[in-house]
Amino acid sequence: MHAIAVKQGETRPELIDIERPEPDEGEVLVKTLRVGIDGTDFEVLSGSHDAFPEGSDYQILGHEAVGVVESPNGTALNEGDIVVPTVRRPANTPSRFFENNEPDMAPPGEYVERGISGAHGYMSEYFTTPASFLVSLPESLADVGFLVEPISNAEKALELAQRSRSTFEWQDSAGLVLGNGPLGLLTLAMLADQCERTYCLGRRERPDPTIDIIEELGATYINSQQTAVDEIPTVYEPMDLVFEATGHAKHAFSTIEALDANGVGVLLGIPDDWEFSVNGGALHRQLVLQNKALLGSVNSNIRHYQRARDTLAEYPDWFLPSIMTTQCPVSEFADAFEDTPDTIKSYVDFRV
Amino acid sequence: MHAIAVKQGETRPELIDIERPEPDEGEVLVKTLRVGIDGTDFEVLSGSHDAFPEGSDYQILGHEAVGVVESPNGTALNEGDIVVPTVRRPANTPSRFFENNEPDMAPPGEYVERGISGAHGYMSEYFTTPASFLVSLPESLADVGFLVEPISNAEKALELAQRSRSTFEWQDSAGLVLGNGPLGLLTLAMLADQCERTYCLGRRERPDPTIDIIEELGATYINSQQTAVDEIPTVYEPMDLVFEATGHAKHAFSTIEALDANGVGVLLGIPDDWEFSVNGGALHRQLVLQNKALLGSVNSNIRHYQRARDTLAEYPDWFLPSIMTTQCPVSEFADAFEDTPDTIKSYVDFRV
Repeated sequence: MHAIAVKQGETRPELIDIERPEPDEGEVLVKTLRVGIDGTDFEVLSGSHDAFPEGSDYQILGHEAVGVVESPNGTALNEGDIVVPTVRRPANTPSRFFENNEPDMAPPGEYVERGISGAHGYMSEYFTTPASFLVSLPESLADVGFLVEPISNAEKALELAQRSRSTFEWQDSAGLVLGNGPLGLLTLAMLADQCERTYCLGRRERPDPTIDIIEELGATYINSQQTAVDEIPTVYEPMDLVFEATGHAKHAFSTIEALDANGVGVLLGIPDDWEFSVNGGALHRQLVLQNKALLGSVNSNIRHYQRARDTLAEYPDWFLPSIMTTQCPVSEFADAFEDTPDTIKSYVDFRV
Repeated sequence: MHAIAVKQGETRPELIDIERPEPDEGEVLVKTLRVGIDGTDFEVLSGSHDAFPEGSDYQILGHEAVGVVESPNGTALNEGDIVVPTVRRPANTPSRFFENNEPDMAPPGEYVERGISGAHGYMSEYFTTPASFLVSLPESLADVGFLVEPISNAEKALELAQRSRSTFEWQDSAGLVLGNGPLGLLTLAMLADQCERTYCLGRRERPDPTIDIIEELGATYINSQQTAVDEIPTVYEPMDLVFEATGHAKHAFSTIEALDANGVGVLLGIPDDWEFSVNGGALHRQLVLQNKALLGSVNSNIRHYQRARDTLAEYPDWFLPSIMTTQCPVSEFADAFEDTPDTIKSYVDFRV
């Protein structure tokens, strides 16, 4: 079968031919429908994760997938079920987090990540996985189901934020998303029901399709070239909830200044080392005197995938087609890794 | 009656003579027993809060008090009840936080703080306050009740920390307190029941009475001149829970590095502006990839005072006498504001 992989020492994806996998006991054979591409895939290509599956000189890409059960193999699933696989799998070490269904909380060393580090991804015609790592979707979500994975990260972040504010009567009236990439837009659309007023920060100038989408969602676009994150409270309003989805390390700190009293910022980006100066005294003082919170959040577990499925079903009809800009059949997979001004979300379609 | 106050333009406390206050409807008249002194009192003396009670050219000091009800004035309290007053009172503005019994979450402008900013404190022979801002104590805690206020801050911080980690099965095996002042020691003693292993960081060399107390509590003393906060994971172990009680702004950031995966740091100190350099990329990345959390926490509400009362009752017998080093009668109040190498906690005793 065909698979899209990066070979050891290479930085570009290739189409390879490998044997179709056989499911072990408890595993399901899934026929792949669509696999999305995000920034992490480019990190894998650049070698920054640098942990190929054991004994393999290539890494199959892809961690945002949707497929259809080809062989339930004695599990509770049925042939034809639409399913989304989660990303993390246990490494060869005992982990209480996997035992508790909390792979997202496992520390480095206790997990591998399919398509990212230590395990093959889902960009192949078929894949196998234990049934316990699959979330079922209604048939109607088969086309968009590969977005469950990115949305699940926003769901986890929202859960963490809400729980951290559950000691008092928190009002999340104003919500801000830093970043207008696919994760930013999916998060913003999720927040539309949550917050009375929503904002999304990006670096692009008009005309730009993401700005149109932001405004169509009823949110206010903030151009970071005109308004720095720490100026947002005076130019717009202080925020109750901030999601950072830029990976820009200065945003982790200016998020504190963007927050209203009692606000919470959740960080999702993964920056490289970067030394810079901050007014650490002012940030520390603001955190304390205004009861602010800053939370890091990575990946997600099956509970967040399930919520993401529900969120996905509730997005307005026009929204998902507007961000799913770049569909590539397997034969033209390389195009899915190209960026153009109109690209929002690219995905490989294994059905065509 | 006598009161200990700072006059406008002065930076030293004085004994003044003022009229005994009359309780309004719903207010109680309390005879003061003891009032503790902490770092905030020195900030008030230095003028950094700079908001004297309206129409007053002096500010009565003191926010850590215990007293005995002199006149219940028709409230549910009884003459002779031992009581501790909370700190925050509503400013002349509507506040949903006071309506919700959450004065600790009120933003600046919605509150005054007795003895700190905008309202007189408790360092007088009598004070009045609405009964709803009083917590009752058993007679047996009358001598130590002024410590309920500082402990209540640790209780709130612990509640915030626990709630922020309640989305998964968190293990708070290792707890670290930054700071070996009275708040640090009271927090450490509270954590002794909470964490399997506790640590306390200070700047002092042996012999020092706080180090003896730390070790008597079963905790490990960490000398910050030998081990920086960010080195603690390698020299000792990574921490599940960190309480920052130093007000040293660099500690807010190195706390992130002291934490284990999924750990939480709560900041309690209130530093001045201080610009310095951080590896913001590494801190941001650690927060995200290891699900770390950083929470600011200020003051406390009646629920936390009630918990503090319970904690106070459960401390080992030797502990409180060992930190209550400096008792001063009103006539020698000035001594309570002096610092010596053996001073841990000073308080003014209004009974003697």
